Amino acid sequence: MGKRLEHDHDGRVVATEEAFNDTKVPPWTKQITIRSMATSFALSIVFNVIVCKLNLTTGVIPSLNVAAGLLGFAVVKAYTSLISKCGLLKQPFNMQENTVIQTCVVASSGIAFSSGTASYLLGMSPFIAANVDGANTPRNVKHLSVGWMIGFLLSVSFVGLFSIVPLRKMMILKYKLTYPSGTATAYLINSFHTPRGAKLAKKQVAVLFKSFCFSFVFAFFQWFYTAAEGCGFSSFPTFGLQAYKQRFYFDFSSTYVGVGMICPYMVNISLLIGAVVSWGIMWPLIELKKGVWYSAELSESSLHGIQGYRVFTAISIMLGEGLFHFVYMLIKTTCSLATHKSENKESSSIIPEISEKSPDSEIANYIEQRRIKFFLEDQIPNPVAMLGYVILAAISIIVVPFIFHQLKWYHILVAYTIAPILAFCNAYGCGLTDWSLASNYGKVAIIIFSSWVGLENGGVVAGLASCGVMMSIVSTASDLMQDFKTGYLTLASPRSMFLSQVFGTAMGCVMSPLVFWFFYKAYPIGDPDGPYPAPYAAMYRGIALLGVEGLDSLPKNCVKLAITFFFAAMALNILGELLKHCEKKYKIYRFVPSPICMAIPFYLGGYFAIDMGLGSLILFMWEQKNKQKAKDFGPAVASGLICGDSLWGIPAAILALAGVEAPLCMKFLSASVNKKVDAFLGN
Amino acid sequence: MGKRLEHDHDGRVVATEEAFNDTKVPPWTKQITIRSMATSFALSIVFNVIVCKLNLTTGVIPSLNVAAGLLGFAVVKAYTSLISKCGLLKQPFNMQENTVIQTCVVASSGIAFSSGTASYLLGMSPFIAANVDGANTPRNVKHLSVGWMIGFLLSVSFVGLFSIVPLRKMMILKYKLTYPSGTATAYLINSFHTPRGAKLAKKQVAVLFKSFCFSFVFAFFQWFYTAAEGCGFSSFPTFGLQAYKQRFYFDFSSTYVGVGMICPYMVNISLLIGAVVSWGIMWPLIELKKGVWYSAELSESSLHGIQGYRVFTAISIMLGEGLFHFVYMLIKTTCSLATHKSENKESSSIIPEISEKSPDSEIANYIEQRRIKFFLEDQIPNPVAMLGYVILAAISIIVVPFIFHQLKWYHILVAYTIAPILAFCNAYGCGLTDWSLASNYGKVAIIIFSSWVGLENGGVVAGLASCGVMMSIVSTASDLMQDFKTGYLTLASPRSMFLSQVFGTAMGCVMSPLVFWFFYKAYPIGDPDGPYPAPYAAMYRGIALLGVEGLDSLPKNCVKLAITFFFAAMALNILGELLKHCEKKYKIYRFVPSPICMAIPFYLGGYFAIDMGLGSLILFMWEQKNKQKAKDFGPAVASGLICGDSLWGIPAAILALAGVEAPLCMKFLSASVNKKVDAFLGN
Repeated sequence: MGKRLEHDHDGRVVATEEAFNDTKVPPWTKQITIRSMATSFALSIVFNVIVCKLNLTTGVIPSLNVAAGLLGFAVVKAYTSLISKCGLLKQPFNMQENTVIQTCVVASSGIAFSSGTASYLLGMSPFIAANVDGANTPRNVKHLSVGWMIGFLLSVSFVGLFSIVPLRKMMILKYKLTYPSGTATAYLINSFHTPRGAKLAKKQVAVLFKSFCFSFVFAFFQWFYTAAEGCGFSSFPTFGLQAYKQRFYFDFSSTYVGVGMICPYMVNISLLIGAVVSWGIMWPLIELKKGVWYSAELSESSLHGIQGYRVFTAISIMLGEGLFHFVYMLIKTTCSLATHKSENKESSSIIPEISEKSPDSEIANYIEQRRIKFFLEDQIPNPVAMLGYVILAAISIIVVPFIFHQLKWYHILVAYTIAPILAFCNAYGCGLTDWSLASNYGKVAIIIFSSWVGLENGGVVAGLASCGVMMSIVSTASDLMQDFKTGYLTLASPRSMFLSQVFGTAMGCVMSPLVFWFFYKAYPIGDPDGPYPAPYAAMYRGIALLGVEGLDSLPKNCVKLAITFFFAAMALNILGELLKHCEKKYKIYRFVPSPICMAIPFYLGGYFAIDMGLGSLILFMWEQKNKQKAKDFGPAVASGLICGDSLWGIPAAILALAGVEAPLCMKFLSASVNKKVDAFLGN
Repeated sequence: MGKRLEHDHDGRVVATEEAFNDTKVPPWTKQITIRSMATSFALSIVFNVIVCKLNLTTGVIPSLNVAAGLLGFAVVKAYTSLISKCGLLKQPFNMQENTVIQTCVVASSGIAFSSGTASYLLGMSPFIAANVDGANTPRNVKHLSVGWMIGFLLSVSFVGLFSIVPLRKMMILKYKLTYPSGTATAYLINSFHTPRGAKLAKKQVAVLFKSFCFSFVFAFFQWFYTAAEGCGFSSFPTFGLQAYKQRFYFDFSSTYVGVGMICPYMVNISLLIGAVVSWGIMWPLIELKKGVWYSAELSESSLHGIQGYRVFTAISIMLGEGLFHFVYMLIKTTCSLATHKSENKESSSIIPEISEKSPDSEIANYIEQRRIKFFLEDQIPNPVAMLGYVILAAISIIVVPFIFHQLKWYHILVAYTIAPILAFCNAYGCGLTDWSLASNYGKVAIIIFSSWVGLENGGVVAGLASCGVMMSIVSTASDLMQDFKTGYLTLASPRSMFLSQVFGTAMGCVMSPLVFWFFYKAYPIGDPDGPYPAPYAAMYRGIALLGVEGLDSLPKNCVKLAITFFFAAMALNILGELLKHCEKKYKIYRFVPSPICMAIPFYLGGYFAIDMGLGSLILFMWEQKNKQKAKDFGPAVASGLICGDSLWGIPAAILALAGVEAPLCMKFLSASVNKKVDAFLGN
C-alpha cells in the first residue's frame, strides 16, 4: 500500500492546451455547485465500495482517477444535457466543476484507503488477534464498532488538510513541483473540455459502461455457483490441484484483470516473481521443516508457524523499501530545497520568465499568467489554516485517548508535533516522485508507539491507533497538494478545491466505516482462506507485535530470513535507482522488479497476480494490434471491469447478510475423490 | 441430416471474373497430381473425423466447403512456395488442382455422412436395440464390425457415380441448373486464384489457424476437468439445475458455436423453438402422465416410454417435411423439364445466345465459350458409364445379401432398378434448390423394405441396410453433379473431376468406418446421456420399427401427436413456400422456421441449439460492427472453431482408449447436496 500506482496520460497535453486559451472561469461559488456535490456523493459511495473491496481482498489499489474522471464527466454531462434539452440549464458544465468532483471523490476514497479499515483498525479486532496468535490479551484487542471508527476518523482526518495549506504557494508556484498524478488528472479533465476530447470521452464512457456491464453480469453469474466455501469460479484450479494448493490459479476475478490492465507491466511481473519465489519455492521448503523450524501443532494462520514466515518476510521487505524511500526522499528534498534557496537569491519572482519571444511561448506565458492569477485568488489565509490545525489537533488529543484507553494524551501530542514535518516531507517528495510514503510513516509510528506503550499496557492497539493518527495527516497532506496542482492546471480556485477536499474527507470518514461494516457483517473478513483475506490486517498487527515483543517472538530462522529480505529490498531499490541515473541507453532500470510488489504475494499467493498478468497480457496484445486504441480505451475497459465486479460486491453482501445461499456449487475434486463422492451420492 | 446446410459466397463474383480471362488451363493429367492427392488424403482424414464427431453428437453438419477450400489452398500453397524457394517447382499451383482437392475431400467426407455410421448402421447394433427396447431379437440386430462395414460401403457407394454421369451435359449445359453450393465453391476457389483473393485467402487462413488453436487448446483445457460422467464444462448448468435437467444449458462446445456461425440465423432460431416446444413444454407435460400414457416401469430410453414420444414426433416431422419436398421437387422437376422441352424445339444449341453486344457481354460470352470447351473435352463415354453401373450393381446384388442375410438378391435388384430415377430426381432437384433429399429417400426405403421383409425375417436390419443402398446412390449422384458444376466454373476437366470423386469415395469408404470404429471403441456411442448420443441411430431404428410393427407399437396418444406434427411440418413448409411466391415485400417467408431443424432438439434437447445461438449472436454482433470483415472472416473463424474442437476428439479418444482418466472433476451440485458431500468428505 506504500505505493499507489498511478496511470500516465501525457499523450493528451497538446490537444488540451489548444482549447484552453479563451475559456471563462466562473467564481469559486459556481465551482462548488449542488449538482457537483451530489455527483461527488454518489460517486464517493461507488468508489468507497470499490476501494474497500480491493483493500479487503489484496490491498492492491490501482489509480482510479481515470474512472472517477470519466464517471464524473458522464454523470454531470448527462444531467446538463437533459436539463438543457428542457431549456432549464442556467450554467453550463465547466472544467472547474469537474475538478471539484474529481477532488472530492478522490479525497473520499483516499480516506477509504488511509482509514485502515482493512489494515490497522481491522488488525485490532479479536478475530485477527486470534488468527495470528500473538498478544491476544484483552488490552491488546479492541472490538470493532462502526460508532467509534467514525468518531476516530473524523477527529484525525482533517488535521492533515490544515497542516499543509500554508505551503501550497511555495510548492506549486515557487518550486514548481510536478505532482505527476495531479498533472495527469488535470490533463484528463482538460481534455474532456475540448471538442475532440469530449467526443473521445463520450466513446470512452460507452466503452467503460460496456465493460462495466460485462463485469457485473459475469460476477453475478459466478455467484450462482458459490453455494459454499471452495465452490465456484474463485476456486477454479486452472493449473491443476497441486498448483491450486500453492495458490497458483486463475480465479476469474475481472477486478484484478482490470487492475492488471492499469498497473505498469513491471508491477505485474514483480507480483508474479514474488509469488514464484514465495509460494513456489520458499514456503514448500519451509513446510518441509515443519516440527523443526516451527511447532507442528500450531494452526495454519498462527504467526508463530508458517504464517509467521509469510508475514514477517513481507513486512521486512516493506520496511526495507520504506527505509530506502525515506532516506532517498530526505536526500532529494534537502538537495532540492538547497538548490531553490540559492536560486531564490537570484530571482524571487514567482512569475515565470520567458527566455524566447516566439508566439508559442507567448501563448504559454499567457496561459501561465492566467493559472497563477486564479491560483492566487480566493486565498485561504495562513492564520486560519494554522488556527485550524491547532484546534483540530487539540480536539484530537482529547478525543483519541477516550476511544483508545491504551493511548495517553501526550502520545498524541508528540504525534501532532512531528506530523507537520513529515507531512511536508511527504507532500514535497510526492511532488517530485509521485510516491506517497504515508503508510511507511504509519508503520514506523506503529513500531515506535507500540514499544513505547508496551505489551502489558496494550501496546499493540496503541501502536495501530497511532499509525492511524500519523497516516491520516501525512496521506491527506500529499493528496491535497496533488489536488492543488490539478486545480492550478485547470484554473480551479484553491478555495473551492480546499472545500471540496473537506467535504470529500467528511464523506469518506462516514462512508468508509459504513461500507466496511457492511462487508464485515456479511463475510468472515480476515480469514486467510476466505474471499476477503485482508492481508494488511495481519501484517500491521505483525508490525505491532514486533514493536511490543521484539524479534524474539518470531519462529526459528525467521529473523534471518526477514533481515535478508530487508536488505535485499533496499539493495534492489538502490540498484534500480543507480541504473536509472547511470545507464540510460537500454533503460535496464525498467526491468528491476519492485520489492514491495513482490511482498504482497508472499502472504496471499499468486492467484491475483495471475489475474493481473492476464490483464497485462490483454493490454499488451491490444497495444500490438492498435496502440492508439489501446491507449485511449484500455483504461476505460479496465475501469469498467473493476467497477462492475466490485459493485457486484454490494448485492452479494446483501444476499450474504440476508442469508441467501447460492443455489449451486461448482466443485473441483480429484478423480479419486470424485469416485468416492459418486459412490456416496449413488447410495 | 436431410438438409446439409450450405453457406453462400455470392459476394466474390465480380472479383473472380476479372482475373479469369487469360489463365492457361493444364491438361487433366496435370490437374490430378500427386501433391493434390496427398493433400486430399490428409484433409480427408481431418474432415472425416470432424464429420464423424458431428454425426455422433447431434447430426447437424454445417457446410465445411469453406474450411476445405481454405485448408486445401493453404496446404498446397505452402508446399509450392517452399518448393519454389528451393528452385524445384515444376508446375505452379493451379485453380483446377484446387478444385480437384476440394472435390476429393468433399466426396470423402460426403461418404462419412451417407455411410450411416451414426444412423442406419449404428441403428442395427445391439446397444441401440437394447436401448430403444423394440424388436430386440437376434435377427433384427447385427453386431458392428469394421470389416463388413468397409465391404458394404465399397460395394454400394460407387454405383451412384455411374448412374448420373451420362446426364451431366444435359443438367449443366442444357438446363443450366444453378447448383448453389457447387457454384459458391467454384467462386471461392476462383477467388483464391486472383491476386486480391489470394491475399484475402492468406489472411483468412491466418484467422482460421488462430481460431483453430484457440478451440483446440480450449478443448484440451476442458478435458482436464472431465474425470467422470457428469463432470466438466459439458455438464455446466449455465441456467440452473432445473434447466439443465431439461437440457437447456451452454455446454462450452466451440464446435457448435462455430456451426452456429456458419448456419443461417433461421436454422438456429428453429432449433431453439424446437427445444422450447419439446423439452420446455411437451415432454414435461407428457411426463406428468407417466403411468397413464406409458408404463412407469420402462427405462428412460425405451421407445415405448417417454423416449418414444421424442423419437416418433421427430420422425413424423422429418417424414412430413420429406414428403413435402418430394412432392414439391417432383412438381418443379416436371414443370422445368416441360419448359425445357418446349424451349428445345426452338433452339437446340447448347452455345449460349448473347442478346446484347456490349463489351461486357462479349467477355462473358468468351468466358462461357471457354467453360463449355473445357467441359466437353476429356469425355467419359456414356457406354462406359452404363456398363460401369450394371457391373457395379451386379456386384452389389451378390455381395450385400452375403453381409445382410436378412436381404435377398431381389430386394437389391428392385432397389437398383428404381435408384437411377430417384438419383436423377435428386440431382435435378438439388440443382434447382440446393437441397439433397438423399436421407428422405433412405427413410422411405427403410419403411418399404422393413415391412416387406417383416419382423420375423429381420425386417429391421433389412430396412436399415436398404436405406444404405438407396441413400448412397442418391446422395453421391447429387454430390457429383454439384462437383461437375464447380468443375465447369473453374475450367476443370470432367474426367479429373470424376476420377477425384472416385478416389475420394474410395477413401471415404475406408476411412469413415475406421474413424467411426475409433470413437466406437473409445466411448459408449448412442448412450442418450453420454457425450456421443448419435441421435439418428435411434431415430432410424425407430423408422424401421414403424415399418415392421406398424403404428400400433407406439405408446398411447403418440400416433395422434406424430400425425399432428407430420401435417404441421407439411403445413409449415407449404406456408413458407407460399409466402416466398406471393409475399415479396417484407419477405416474411424468411421468418418461417424450418420443421426439420425443430425436430432435432426433440430428441437431443436444447443444449447444442444454445451453443449455436451463441455463435449466431457473435456473428450478428460482428456484422453490426463491421459487415465486410464479418463476411470475410466469419466462416474462417467458424471453421477454425469446428476443426480445432473436433480434432481434439482424436487425442481425447486415444486417451479414453488408453484408459487415461482426466485428473480433475468439475462437479455441479445443488447447495443441499453439496452440504451432504462436504459432510461426507469432512469425515
